[in-house]
Amino acid sequence: MADLVDALAVSAPHRQRLDFLLAAHDLTAVLRVNRLLNGSRCETSAEHSWHLALAALTLGPEVAPGVDLGRVLAMLIVHDLPEVYAGDVPIHDEQARLAIAAVEEEAAVRLFGKLPAEQGNQLLALWHEFEAARTDEARFARAIDRIQPLLLHWASDGAAWAERRVTVEQERRIMSAVDTFWPALAPTAAALIDDAHRRGLLPASAGADAGQAGPH
Amino acid sequence: MADLVDALAVSAPHRQRLDFLLAAHDLTAVLRVNRLLNGSRCETSAEHSWHLALAALTLGPEVAPGVDLGRVLAMLIVHDLPEVYAGDVPIHDEQARLAIAAVEEEAAVRLFGKLPAEQGNQLLALWHEFEAARTDEARFARAIDRIQPLLLHWASDGAAWAERRVTVEQERRIMSAVDTFWPALAPTAAALIDDAHRRGLLPASAGADAGQAGPH
Repeated sequence: MADLVDALAVSAPHRQRLDFLLAAHDLTAVLRVNRLLNGSRCETSAEHSWHLALAALTLGPEVAPGVDLGRVLAMLIVHDLPEVYAGDVPIHDEQARLAIAAVEEEAAVRLFGKLPAEQGNQLLALWHEFEAARTDEARFARAIDRIQPLLLHWASDGAAWAERRVTVEQERRIMSAVDTFWPALAPTAAALIDDAHRRGLLPASAGADAGQAGPH
Repeated sequence: MADLVDALAVSAPHRQRLDFLLAAHDLTAVLRVNRLLNGSRCETSAEHSWHLALAALTLGPEVAPGVDLGRVLAMLIVHDLPEVYAGDVPIHDEQARLAIAAVEEEAAVRLFGKLPAEQGNQLLALWHEFEAARTDEARFARAIDRIQPLLLHWASDGAAWAERRVTVEQERRIMSAVDTFWPALAPTAAALIDDAHRRGLLPASAGADAGQAGPH
């Protein structure tokens, strides 16, 4: 795409921005494990990023009143961009999640590196801020990133959970991050998990398998 | 979905927010005319909304330095939500665009009406602000909403233009809105159209048809 962009009669930094935007658009080709609510296909990481931003906008004023929502939105819009090169690793593949960190870092440097240096560094810093989960904005954004898939799994009768044989214990463990990141959202996560368990969508694990459930 | 949400052990306003978020997720099922850059399928309005937000974040600091980017992001994230009920009407169907306004207004009232009243009114006002294009934030957002599809059409060898037999005159007329909304982006639109014309992706119309090209 860089060759095409080079032919445009705009400034060099502006050409870099357009090249970045076209490369980033491939986030529409990265598929997640959860399906759309109509069941037709898997959600893309671009759609997930949009829905996270909408969730932050919808839940933020109530549960995160002191947080700079504009920065949260910016963070959520860029948070999955490295997947353009690194792909999506599902949250329930806990070992793979640990292994992917270095690959995602490299992908982030490569993608944001398409931008003019100062701007690329700013967006890379925003992505690092999300990953580090130390500022309020990052912690709220991280909690939203956990709770949105939970909401979709719950609303689609647990199809993605069933495929991966996720137990209620495993889901509670994964969702304990919501309590760590943003305690005001923890009751929502608990209500969704409890209702899913009650409806049989998240079974208890059987004895020795407790906490070991996965896509085996 | 409202029945499901009613069973959750969370506060009534919070149930309304979750019901809204699930209804809004159907924006992932609304297809636009342009295909993904890999050609595999049409872009969804949810993906388009995400990419607009990314474009505002990428282009804003340079071409709209005085604008509140956080508000622009919020506006772009909600701007297509009424399509959940009203569907997408392509920009090149100029007559249909005029006819759809009342339907989109009704859809906006219905969707934002799922939220607690005060919050629903705030997001409806944000959507109206985008539509009215009077504030700087809305005007910049509207310009981004025009230029992103142009960028994608240009980058995908004009496939969507060819399907609808769009001429360079028609595209220039539609993109004159960029100059009206946000003049600093007009040179980018012009560069994309000129290059597309040079590459034969946007032909000149033949004599009497000038300015009348459309999907006939």
